Amino acid sequence: MDYLIEPMAIEKKSFAIIERRINRKIFSEEEMEIAKRVVHATADFEFARLMRFNRNAVESGIEALRAGWDIVTDTRMARAGIRRILASKFGSRVKCYSVSKKAREMAEEMGITRAMAGIMIGAEEPKNRIFVIGNAPTALFKLNELIKKEKISPALVVGVPVGFVGAKEAKEELLQLPVPSIAVKGCKGGTPVAVAIVNALLLLAERRDGVE
Amino acid sequence: MDYLIEPMAIEKKSFAIIERRINRKIFSEEEMEIAKRVVHATADFEFARLMRFNRNAVESGIEALRAGWDIVTDTRMARAGIRRILASKFGSRVKCYSVSKKAREMAEEMGITRAMAGIMIGAEEPKNRIFVIGNAPTALFKLNELIKKEKISPALVVGVPVGFVGAKEAKEELLQLPVPSIAVKGCKGGTPVAVAIVNALLLLAERRDGVE
Repeated sequence: MDYLIEPMAIEKKSFAIIERRINRKIFSEEEMEIAKRVVHATADFEFARLMRFNRNAVESGIEALRAGWDIVTDTRMARAGIRRILASKFGSRVKCYSVSKKAREMAEEMGITRAMAGIMIGAEEPKNRIFVIGNAPTALFKLNELIKKEKISPALVVGVPVGFVGAKEAKEELLQLPVPSIAVKGCKGGTPVAVAIVNALLLLAERRDGVE
Repeated sequence: MDYLIEPMAIEKKSFAIIERRINRKIFSEEEMEIAKRVVHATADFEFARLMRFNRNAVESGIEALRAGWDIVTDTRMARAGIRRILASKFGSRVKCYSVSKKAREMAEEMGITRAMAGIMIGAEEPKNRIFVIGNAPTALFKLNELIKKEKISPALVVGVPVGFVGAKEAKEELLQLPVPSIAVKGCKGGTPVAVAIVNALLLLAERRDGVE
């Protein structure tokens, strides 16, 4: 039972179980690292089948993190889960605008969700180049719209909102856009999926040579 | 497409989809409210089949919240997701000890996970009566151990850790213990599941007559 209390041993054993069951052929080595962490976070192998890496997403994400671009999340929960100390080593901050007073006011005035308002506010700041949507389809619809209108050009969109209303459609739309993106097809997704993807990218970024 | 941006309309439409597909017969009305929110948070109907409500868990949880007992979570993410303003209306605070300096030191000294150390610290404070484990099986094993040794007597344990190593076993053990508990059988679970359960209980608590 020792492996049940020793953190690194738990992770190692868990990854060994996961590796045996994911079809490696559909992923690059780095994509596989990310898919493994998503399955680890959810205990749901369906994610490995549903994940899509679009337009050189992994490389673009790693480069963006290493360049110190900031990360915008749709929820406080996603912000809380991302390894912000590791991100800060690259100069990258993790921000969530949807919980701000300004977002609440905008949402009330415009009759939109706070998550949408949060994305609109986040899009104003040019240092925000990595967008992470783990919960709210509305936030991803808004982000897609801003991309289509060329108001923003993210280095990476992690688009994995969850739900029966709009999530699938928002992700399908994202995958058609000319930006690097990581998405999960269908209704499934969620904050732990988003967090696992970003933290995997941070670890991959750290592993590259030349990190301070 | 209006329903795609109006928050309450999204939720209503989503719940309508979910209600059609959950087998109502296996749940009480209040349990159904909770199960619905878990499916809403995950887009995964398997949770409705895997959820267990043990020893009058819903009633005990609502009473504990209304009495203002504090909530201890295993992760910062779970803490971030719980509707703390609603909890505070009852005088209930949401705490996470695993991210404290003390937990980190204990974990290093004792060779255990920070999540375990966090539970050990949280168990010292008698106002902590609601324990919420959404991620770390080790935290639930530790909590189970403290319950078995009669060191603590929670009013409710929300035990939904996720993973291939220990999660299933920790939850099976919890369901055997003489405390009110809500769990998800098998490997699945996760922080959004834990958060959905607690927030559903908070809404049920608010709905009762006589709330300030």
